[in-house]
Amino acid sequence: MYIFGIDIGGTSVKIGMFKDTFELLDQWEIPTHPENLFEEVVDNIKNYLNKKEITFAEIFGYGIGIPGMVKSGIAISCVNLGWKNVDVKKEFSKALGYDARVYVFNDANIAAFGEASYLNSKWDSVVFITLGTGVGGGIIFHQEIIEGADGLGGEIGHICIDDKYRLTCGCGKTGCLETIASATGMLRLAQHYRDKLPTKLDFNRKLVAKDIIDAAKEEDSLASFVFDEACQALAKAMANLSVIINPDAFIIGGGVSNAGVFLLDRIRKHYLNLCLKQAEHTKINLAVLKNNAGIYGACAYLINKKYEVEKNGKC
Amino acid sequence: MYIFGIDIGGTSVKIGMFKDTFELLDQWEIPTHPENLFEEVVDNIKNYLNKKEITFAEIFGYGIGIPGMVKSGIAISCVNLGWKNVDVKKEFSKALGYDARVYVFNDANIAAFGEASYLNSKWDSVVFITLGTGVGGGIIFHQEIIEGADGLGGEIGHICIDDKYRLTCGCGKTGCLETIASATGMLRLAQHYRDKLPTKLDFNRKLVAKDIIDAAKEEDSLASFVFDEACQALAKAMANLSVIINPDAFIIGGGVSNAGVFLLDRIRKHYLNLCLKQAEHTKINLAVLKNNAGIYGACAYLINKKYEVEKNGKC
Repeated sequence: MYIFGIDIGGTSVKIGMFKDTFELLDQWEIPTHPENLFEEVVDNIKNYLNKKEITFAEIFGYGIGIPGMVKSGIAISCVNLGWKNVDVKKEFSKALGYDARVYVFNDANIAAFGEASYLNSKWDSVVFITLGTGVGGGIIFHQEIIEGADGLGGEIGHICIDDKYRLTCGCGKTGCLETIASATGMLRLAQHYRDKLPTKLDFNRKLVAKDIIDAAKEEDSLASFVFDEACQALAKAMANLSVIINPDAFIIGGGVSNAGVFLLDRIRKHYLNLCLKQAEHTKINLAVLKNNAGIYGACAYLINKKYEVEKNGKC
Repeated sequence: MYIFGIDIGGTSVKIGMFKDTFELLDQWEIPTHPENLFEEVVDNIKNYLNKKEITFAEIFGYGIGIPGMVKSGIAISCVNLGWKNVDVKKEFSKALGYDARVYVFNDANIAAFGEASYLNSKWDSVVFITLGTGVGGGIIFHQEIIEGADGLGGEIGHICIDDKYRLTCGCGKTGCLETIASATGMLRLAQHYRDKLPTKLDFNRKLVAKDIIDAAKEEDSLASFVFDEACQALAKAMANLSVIINPDAFIIGGGVSNAGVFLLDRIRKHYLNLCLKQAEHTKINLAVLKNNAGIYGACAYLINKKYEVEKNGKC
């Protein structure tokens, strides 16, 4: 049997065709046109299957990641696509034209599932944190995604962590983790300290988070301080998560995680200062699947559902 | 079939005998003697069953709550009983003398399960918070307890929430929710402000949290301020939990929750100021089972297991 993992982004839709052994057979992208999305994705998949002489009967199901809040198959809100309360499960099935197995997820949640399944499928609970323009996340417990009553489960970026800078977050609140630990947060902090700490950073050109991290690696005073503040804020959130979820592992992904071991070491240093003794050994890993985490996650989730079907005879 | 719920406390063991319909048939207590605990509890149960002419074959299983950290049936640490790494499941089965279904839980976790099951068994996720000498808690997701990799799941009291007073917590860290929102925390805060705010509280006698709450109800300045600080700290932790777990409901229990609606209203006021819009409607309830929550929880958990056995033919 085959499984499709579909990761819908603001500019493109990533499609992955998997065997039900977690093996990625093929992957490609098509542009995102929100107004006609389901028909275009389904047409594309139908053409692909025709070419490969594969029938719908051989497809176990479809997992779809959405860049917005999802609850029970419905995209509650999805700003990038201009969607509000779109029944993705229903619309996608309608476009397919048959009663298929369709699961819909928030993109960070299903990426969490992908990374966790790929790194160690025996972990019982995992907290995945993406450090990008914002801070996103996903929490896996007992092979399930903590979606939350309103689709807010795993919205790690909006943990209120900061009483020092009290920067306003995109969500309207102040002091969210995202205001400090995201790429944007680091750039804001750098601006805040630009006249207070010595630096080689050139504020006359458009800086990106990588500039700050690269400068921090070279022990630039301002950059080192900002990078450390970001890592400490993240570690504080992680220490709190360790007395809430107490996961087997934290997985750090997103663009900022390209800083690799330099980032991980600094996070770990602060985490060990802030967590309870019992949680000191919790694993902190870098994400490995990167942009493919969503399609792998969708595949892993559907493989689990396949086991359930085989065991219980229903889905 | 019958189910036993057993809640082990520092001074007494509460035993509840249930029908597998969630009906409490009988309950009683015996004193806690840690050195001989399993034999004494089992002897007591055997005598009871003999008297009632009930056989072991009619007992579906036993659920045991422990006042300490529990992981996979083992009491990792249990200060009140002087236990460290005690295999409760094994020891209790040994005392019973047959291979029984025995489940072991942290006491706050199984109380969470009891309150959640009793209030609304359709809730998918619930965060239970006990406000007593300390602040404890338990998190239920998909009818399971989030026990955590090291038994730290749901240890709500050690969420680091406070950057203002930075009081040292029993766990060795500073700023834990417990340092502000527990009965002890409120008393410490009252001491901190005793010369700074007008009050009718008599610091020459031994005050308890109820004195502060009663005075707050009468708008005593010091007591009102301290009570408000406690509620705000708790609401801040709850707002964070609403972007991590995003539960269907919060349930507030423990001695302090006897303050009832007065407490709930104040918590809700601060929660609505601090949470995201999507989480504003999350239910905030008072616990109803109080000291019986643990035995009810054990019963509810075993009823679920019974369904699984009936469905899958295994446990």
